[in-house]
Amino acid sequence: MSIIKQNYNEKFIQKATNVTEQNNYVSRVKRGKILGNHGGFRGCTIWFTGLSGAGKTSVSFELEEYLVSKGIPAYSLDGDNMRTGLNKNLGFSKEDREENIRRVAEVAKLFADAGHICLCSFVSPFTEDRMIARKIHENSNLPFFEVFVDTPLAVCEKRDIKGLYEKARKGIIKGFTGIDQEYQKPEHPEMVVKTVELSIQESMLQVVEMLEENSIIPKLRLQNSLEVKELFVPEHQLKAAIKEAASLESLEISSVDLQWVQVLGEGWATPLSGFMRENEFLQTLHFNNLSNINQSIPIVLTINTAQKDKLQDCSSIALCHRGTTYAILKDIEIYYHRKEERCARQFGTTNKDHPYIKLVMESGDWIVGGDLQVLTRVKWNDGLDQYRLTPNELRKKFHEMETDAIFAFQLRNPIHNGHALLMTDTKQQLEKRGFKKPVLLLHPLGGWTKDDDVPLNVRMEQHQAVLDDGLLDAASTVLAIFPSPMMYAGPTEVQWHAKARMVAGANFYIVGRDPAGVPHPLGKEGSPDGNLYDATHGGRVLKMAPGLSSVEIIPFRVAAYDAKHCKMDFFDPSRKDDFDFISGTRMRGLARSGTNPPQGFMSPKAWQILSTYYQNLKNN
Amino acid sequence: MSIIKQNYNEKFIQKATNVTEQNNYVSRVKRGKILGNHGGFRGCTIWFTGLSGAGKTSVSFELEEYLVSKGIPAYSLDGDNMRTGLNKNLGFSKEDREENIRRVAEVAKLFADAGHICLCSFVSPFTEDRMIARKIHENSNLPFFEVFVDTPLAVCEKRDIKGLYEKARKGIIKGFTGIDQEYQKPEHPEMVVKTVELSIQESMLQVVEMLEENSIIPKLRLQNSLEVKELFVPEHQLKAAIKEAASLESLEISSVDLQWVQVLGEGWATPLSGFMRENEFLQTLHFNNLSNINQSIPIVLTINTAQKDKLQDCSSIALCHRGTTYAILKDIEIYYHRKEERCARQFGTTNKDHPYIKLVMESGDWIVGGDLQVLTRVKWNDGLDQYRLTPNELRKKFHEMETDAIFAFQLRNPIHNGHALLMTDTKQQLEKRGFKKPVLLLHPLGGWTKDDDVPLNVRMEQHQAVLDDGLLDAASTVLAIFPSPMMYAGPTEVQWHAKARMVAGANFYIVGRDPAGVPHPLGKEGSPDGNLYDATHGGRVLKMAPGLSSVEIIPFRVAAYDAKHCKMDFFDPSRKDDFDFISGTRMRGLARSGTNPPQGFMSPKAWQILSTYYQNLKNN
Repeated sequence: MSIIKQNYNEKFIQKATNVTEQNNYVSRVKRGKILGNHGGFRGCTIWFTGLSGAGKTSVSFELEEYLVSKGIPAYSLDGDNMRTGLNKNLGFSKEDREENIRRVAEVAKLFADAGHICLCSFVSPFTEDRMIARKIHENSNLPFFEVFVDTPLAVCEKRDIKGLYEKARKGIIKGFTGIDQEYQKPEHPEMVVKTVELSIQESMLQVVEMLEENSIIPKLRLQNSLEVKELFVPEHQLKAAIKEAASLESLEISSVDLQWVQVLGEGWATPLSGFMRENEFLQTLHFNNLSNINQSIPIVLTINTAQKDKLQDCSSIALCHRGTTYAILKDIEIYYHRKEERCARQFGTTNKDHPYIKLVMESGDWIVGGDLQVLTRVKWNDGLDQYRLTPNELRKKFHEMETDAIFAFQLRNPIHNGHALLMTDTKQQLEKRGFKKPVLLLHPLGGWTKDDDVPLNVRMEQHQAVLDDGLLDAASTVLAIFPSPMMYAGPTEVQWHAKARMVAGANFYIVGRDPAGVPHPLGKEGSPDGNLYDATHGGRVLKMAPGLSSVEIIPFRVAAYDAKHCKMDFFDPSRKDDFDFISGTRMRGLARSGTNPPQGFMSPKAWQILSTYYQNLKNN
Repeated sequence: MSIIKQNYNEKFIQKATNVTEQNNYVSRVKRGKILGNHGGFRGCTIWFTGLSGAGKTSVSFELEEYLVSKGIPAYSLDGDNMRTGLNKNLGFSKEDREENIRRVAEVAKLFADAGHICLCSFVSPFTEDRMIARKIHENSNLPFFEVFVDTPLAVCEKRDIKGLYEKARKGIIKGFTGIDQEYQKPEHPEMVVKTVELSIQESMLQVVEMLEENSIIPKLRLQNSLEVKELFVPEHQLKAAIKEAASLESLEISSVDLQWVQVLGEGWATPLSGFMRENEFLQTLHFNNLSNINQSIPIVLTINTAQKDKLQDCSSIALCHRGTTYAILKDIEIYYHRKEERCARQFGTTNKDHPYIKLVMESGDWIVGGDLQVLTRVKWNDGLDQYRLTPNELRKKFHEMETDAIFAFQLRNPIHNGHALLMTDTKQQLEKRGFKKPVLLLHPLGGWTKDDDVPLNVRMEQHQAVLDDGLLDAASTVLAIFPSPMMYAGPTEVQWHAKARMVAGANFYIVGRDPAGVPHPLGKEGSPDGNLYDATHGGRVLKMAPGLSSVEIIPFRVAAYDAKHCKMDFFDPSRKDDFDFISGTRMRGLARSGTNPPQGFMSPKAWQILSTYYQNLKNN
């Protein structure tokens, strides 16, 4: 009795509560937005409705995963977590059915208020119930999106994942929506998703687009999306753009600059919209991060003072190389190229004998940044263009291969059996972790390299030989060329290598001991082991790096030549005398002198290619 | 009827759902943790119980705000949002009372599962109900903390904010907990909070501590807390620590090193727990960020090879300076001091004539990192120690001044009327924005500076003169010394200056054109204007810098001497000929030659101090 009384009084207090308390609630609702800790997104509820088997939960789960991977809080409510918990005491009367939806909507409202994107997946066949859910949100000024997952009954019935349609047809289940119970189609849903025409991922991305358009989340689709934003002029605007380019002041760019145009145009450096303006340049140099996506290396176009004087009053310019106009640079910004500071921050040294620093020091004193509009895809006509796949082409390929895990490996040196071992082992590790079809992106760097590196054509031939020899499983490997120039910038550059592969869809990135190994220009006077960077720093810095959240870093296991078993194997310290670490220098020495390396070090065909290259080099 | 059937079948499906689906749920629960997007914290529920007026909601709201400001998702459930929404259809029978608590607990569980810290504030007087809430969480493996807000009835009744106790005493309300209804005290709550002995903020911080200790959130208390974590050995452990230090291998450190011990010990470099180990060093150099708190400059202790050989087998060492043992360095890690790379990344140059780079290059080839336990506060006995306030002392002072906005200004040069104008103007701007009592933290840098800078004692005397002359409002100004050495590291160092003031409680930081201006060692050969850093970069980089979210950057407005009105004023380009930019060089020239500057440039008393210093310098 007294209990009842007390509760009654509590309710009375609640109702009679003063304005201050009501305001408290409002201010809590607003607080998340004011404090801005949600990083540019706000809470809402997405209500998926549709027949059993329509794909509501599949799309909702895919969306939850996508949003969470972007750091956007999202949470799914469905029969699974509602009927077993909060609503487990609900019966099945009309009132209880309504109460089920009402409670779901009330909980969704709280999640939306807390800044979550709350994803509700319920058949919810009746318009009236869905209206109640909408009202609950409208009354609290929280966005509500009704998404009709419109899959024809025939398709749902054919899918019949849980065998329910069969049971309904046989009369074992009665009152099943679509069979002997009406489904009231939404008349004005915010969105209709057709899972027959689109894959689950494509359907999910449609919803993401809606969230972006309604400013619920920032426009920041990237790695998980099907498409990377490219900077190519769309087909229908091409004619006008070419005409515009012809009218502009033009700038002749170098072939390394053109490689950067290719990198930018194909979208490897997302979210960059062109050559860096100064704010992007500073953010890159100081923090290796742009809009929460890693960007460790500056991608800039340098000009000399004469060029600056010519261009400084232009708003847009045309970028040309050997008679071809490749791109327009829009809304340009010219700023001083502080070469010393740039090199110091990018390379951790200012030594002018470093191969890429030499390029920087010889480049112009000014930088011109702007938005890039690429008129034509960059081709090199060296017989290797078919290997130069864009991130979108790679993503399409992975999609077709139906892979569930893509692991990428970057090489700018010849491939040997130790690498093959590592990649085969990585694949096995991923399979052990439950991935059904891991695919290797074997992705040698194809842009500018220093003079004494093995040229791209030789490396590609040698890579292909390793695949032909069956040392790597060709069926689960994509061999392609990464078009970026090499900067030899150690821990800073390894982030770029990982980020670009993340953009191409990779979920895993293998990182070696010294991913961009380069000797110190001063040798042992420059550092104790004569190397510019500590061998462990690349991997360690990569693990700490911001804006690489959707790619997992897999450390390189050290492989060496096991002289006892005549093969490359993971180094076993318990019998360390059996192992022979064959350095690049020794490999080159063997190749130059025409001596074969120990059997099992490299596929014979691949060795032949490398050896021939060095023999020819010696003879020229 | 058919509806009932359908719902029944839905329930049946739910229960009979196959293992895969159950696993789906489990994997969603885990997903947040696996993807790691919660940044090191995990969901849980905190259940506040206690009498009406005990302070449950106050502590809970304070905690929610604290957590959200740290980027940790937190959400409060209370009568306010539950009884008006989800539970509005509940009556007041025993069953409904139980159902009220059950539903709250079920919703809390969902929030905890979503990675939130869910804060429930309900009188919840009965042990049985609270047990149900706990069980619901335990069954889902989600942490549940019962917090008993233990405020004596007499105090609650005296507070009687809502006038309910009075009504209960008069019999208007019946069955009121504590009056004519039992409150069953929790027997084994996870925590008891006593709001009589502690303020709301202190109570809140107690709960934060519990969350930290249970690894729900990382140990990361900072700017909003009352206290900055210092590295001083607590009084009761001091004797043992001193004894331990005496038994350790000792390392003699320089006076600049000792300044860093002071900086670390007083907590300016939170969250650093001592001199940097290599991971912290790398993270600082590459990303200027440690655990989401800005840290742009490395704070390291260097040793030479002989010292390394002596110390390398120690786990802890004692740090001494001129006969005093100041600290213990625990669990040391020794790593190679890559000086060139460090200077390149920190200073954007490797020029050995840069004043601090010179110190670095002359320092040891190794770095020793470890946790610092400071035995005694660093004092310099130069008559200025009373100005050397720790962040906690400053916070206490601000608290006592009842300020609602603290704006900090960093100076390593003499103060002139332009600075005073800027600070007075900033105060007015803040007042216009609605702050009632802005306070200036006038905070000259007091550590090592290069030889030709004006010494600290002269600057302090001169600063005091400006206050005495009334050019700055002494009542709303705190004059204190920032104990850090100066590194002359431009845009990198300005972040350090802002971060340290954020730690001391500042909400606003004034940044000048070139906050750590330093000429390029090569003069105009090194950069076009002869300066090492672009004058705009400091402010721009500071605005982009990560981990400075709780401090707002206020750009410095350019002030110059208005010859027409004989005073310092903000530069007006429309009558630019009236303005005279008096450079530091010219000021020094005037002071050396004993000539007075234009009237109104500097307070006469302050000028006298400066002039005397330069006269004496000339005469020595």
